Amino acid sequence: MGVLEFHGQQYLDGHASDPREFGWMRGAPPPVDKRITFESDCFRSFPRIRWSLSHMRELTATVNVWRGPGAPSHFERHLRTSDIEALVFTDSNGCRRRFDEALFDTYADGIVVLHRGRIVYERYFGELEPHLPHACHSVTKSYAGTLAAAFVHEGVLDDSKSISHYLPELRSTAWEDATLRQVMDMQTGLAHTETYADEKSDIWAYSRACGFRPRLAGYDGPQTMCDYLQTVCKEGRHGETFDYLTVNTEVMTWVMSRVTGHSFAQLLQERLWAPLGCEDDAYVLVDSAGMPMAGAGLCTSLRDLARFGELMRCEGVWNGKQLIPASVVQDVQNGDHPAKVSNGSYRSQWWVTHNELGAIEARGIHGQRLYIAPKTEMVVARFASHPLASAEVGDIITMPQMLALGRMLRG
Amino acid sequence: MGVLEFHGQQYLDGHASDPREFGWMRGAPPPVDKRITFESDCFRSFPRIRWSLSHMRELTATVNVWRGPGAPSHFERHLRTSDIEALVFTDSNGCRRRFDEALFDTYADGIVVLHRGRIVYERYFGELEPHLPHACHSVTKSYAGTLAAAFVHEGVLDDSKSISHYLPELRSTAWEDATLRQVMDMQTGLAHTETYADEKSDIWAYSRACGFRPRLAGYDGPQTMCDYLQTVCKEGRHGETFDYLTVNTEVMTWVMSRVTGHSFAQLLQERLWAPLGCEDDAYVLVDSAGMPMAGAGLCTSLRDLARFGELMRCEGVWNGKQLIPASVVQDVQNGDHPAKVSNGSYRSQWWVTHNELGAIEARGIHGQRLYIAPKTEMVVARFASHPLASAEVGDIITMPQMLALGRMLRG
Repeated sequence: MGVLEFHGQQYLDGHASDPREFGWMRGAPPPVDKRITFESDCFRSFPRIRWSLSHMRELTATVNVWRGPGAPSHFERHLRTSDIEALVFTDSNGCRRRFDEALFDTYADGIVVLHRGRIVYERYFGELEPHLPHACHSVTKSYAGTLAAAFVHEGVLDDSKSISHYLPELRSTAWEDATLRQVMDMQTGLAHTETYADEKSDIWAYSRACGFRPRLAGYDGPQTMCDYLQTVCKEGRHGETFDYLTVNTEVMTWVMSRVTGHSFAQLLQERLWAPLGCEDDAYVLVDSAGMPMAGAGLCTSLRDLARFGELMRCEGVWNGKQLIPASVVQDVQNGDHPAKVSNGSYRSQWWVTHNELGAIEARGIHGQRLYIAPKTEMVVARFASHPLASAEVGDIITMPQMLALGRMLRG
Repeated sequence: MGVLEFHGQQYLDGHASDPREFGWMRGAPPPVDKRITFESDCFRSFPRIRWSLSHMRELTATVNVWRGPGAPSHFERHLRTSDIEALVFTDSNGCRRRFDEALFDTYADGIVVLHRGRIVYERYFGELEPHLPHACHSVTKSYAGTLAAAFVHEGVLDDSKSISHYLPELRSTAWEDATLRQVMDMQTGLAHTETYADEKSDIWAYSRACGFRPRLAGYDGPQTMCDYLQTVCKEGRHGETFDYLTVNTEVMTWVMSRVTGHSFAQLLQERLWAPLGCEDDAYVLVDSAGMPMAGAGLCTSLRDLARFGELMRCEGVWNGKQLIPASVVQDVQNGDHPAKVSNGSYRSQWWVTHNELGAIEARGIHGQRLYIAPKTEMVVARFASHPLASAEVGDIITMPQMLALGRMLRG
């Protein structure tokens, strides 16, 4: 049975951890050792996570993102499956890999590749099916950041204003004197840690407040996301360094919802899901006050993720309509200068590679990714359920893989 | 402000309890006194229930019932709104009522009336919207019963066999020597009560096991629905009296899932949602083992409920295809003889009126109803959120209302 090693620990590989082989949650009822429950917290552990990320709504409360009543928008197909699967590239460790095997080595659950708006490659693995929403985790942030930047462009929000201007509740917190732009670009000084491997990291306290992880008996911490955000203190200065913290996305989205009167789920529906003609309803995890988690809570089908990527590749135009201002997309592509992120920059909740393909990325912690390469007219949407909660670990393979694919498609 | 009295207690009427006026769960975040949470159990209490029944998935875990990739089936519209709203009828207490006001007096959230397959009336109130799934509660049972009867017809199940033949886990329980047919027709002798007004009734222990109601701190009862069912003991004899108990529906559906290998949600998708061309995905509440609650857990949009009604009116034929065997529908319409239910009978999880319209009914505890009247080619699908957990309380108005409407449409 295949294993892979990460950080000195061995894990079943992509083939051996296939959730269908394990039979998680099959049977009426499933055998006790095959059950995956929210309460036990086991849904996040490998290899169960390979099932969980395609079934989040079966574990906890969610709000629907309605696709609308019409027929879905049509993708032309011009499949180049065998070309693409046989593509060989060299990963960042110098190891030669085939495109298809690299998907298994990064625990991919599915991938859609668009070239000039046509599907040239599409595969599903393990639990994932074309119509099934998969957890995006931090890919969610790029949806939220795009909406926020659009509202700034439209004058609905002013990104030079402080957070406390919009949210008086956040006076006397870290965000009192942070500008909306600093929050959008993750340039805040917060006494808050986001270290997934450390059970004592603040990210877990935030997760428990949101209902994103189970609470221990006797839990007396914050009951909701907004309650939690009001406990975060300042540390250091705003606007000086890049510090990637999910709580910033929640604050940014809270501002959007306060000002527009619409929840994140409603904004997704109105501004993206309906006008893009998405194929499937999406959903977002909610806390006990019904607030959708804009930092990590979106679950969408892969083709609908690809639709969003294509919208960004086309500078906000979809079927002749400008859904997102072109200048918003251009501003993301330009990135932040001087770049504060190693190997690139971060702008409006997008990762900017500044590479030869002009690629921007939305990145999720278990290998989920929306990779948009305007210079080769390519969009790659992929879902994964990597054993490690670390987007970087897959980069060794995925970044060279994307580059090689982009070069091949450029021809 | 309008009030109505039931069982000596006063309640805000249908207008005054409109959830939009209360502003439940509006705002980012909603004010504390406007929140509706699962944990507090307040979601079930009036007037909050008028919001909750249109938002169940935002409160707890659910599994999707996918409508499939195609376009929805088309309903012709031939609206007779003013005729129908002006219809005056006499309720069972002798009170004259207008059709439209009677909807408010029974806390309707929405209604669709089909005549000869065309929509002649459609209204939404309060929180409900055309695409939004609403809790069906026990209307769910009639979906499950129809599927079970179809499997019996097809020879997949044998309704003369005992439950323990199919589910060895239920040996040494009430169901050991009950036949599948007795369970389908609610003719079992169980030491189990279903009295919603009594907090100590077994229905609430069942609900807590299923995760349908919150558990108190230190809860050490059954963790899942199937665990709970294994605790139910026999009392009296099977096959003698009608005793309406939701646990029977769970047992019946457990048999279906065990034998077919498909969950209730999958069966709904394969046998009904996809072939009917439903407009919207539906969903079913699940317990912590992922078992969908077939006794009360379905949430569907109103038009899709009407589609199921039209299928039954047309003896299982939809767009020229026999989706449900005609003999299954005829057997339901014939009802159980001799009738063991006051004012009618009960067959395969349907209420049979034996009235002049030949009506059969699926009935939910807060006034949800699918009323199918073959003799006047009418189907009425309605959702409601009545303050009382008692389907009978609305009957005083709704039964004469349906009869008057059926007579009017017959012309």
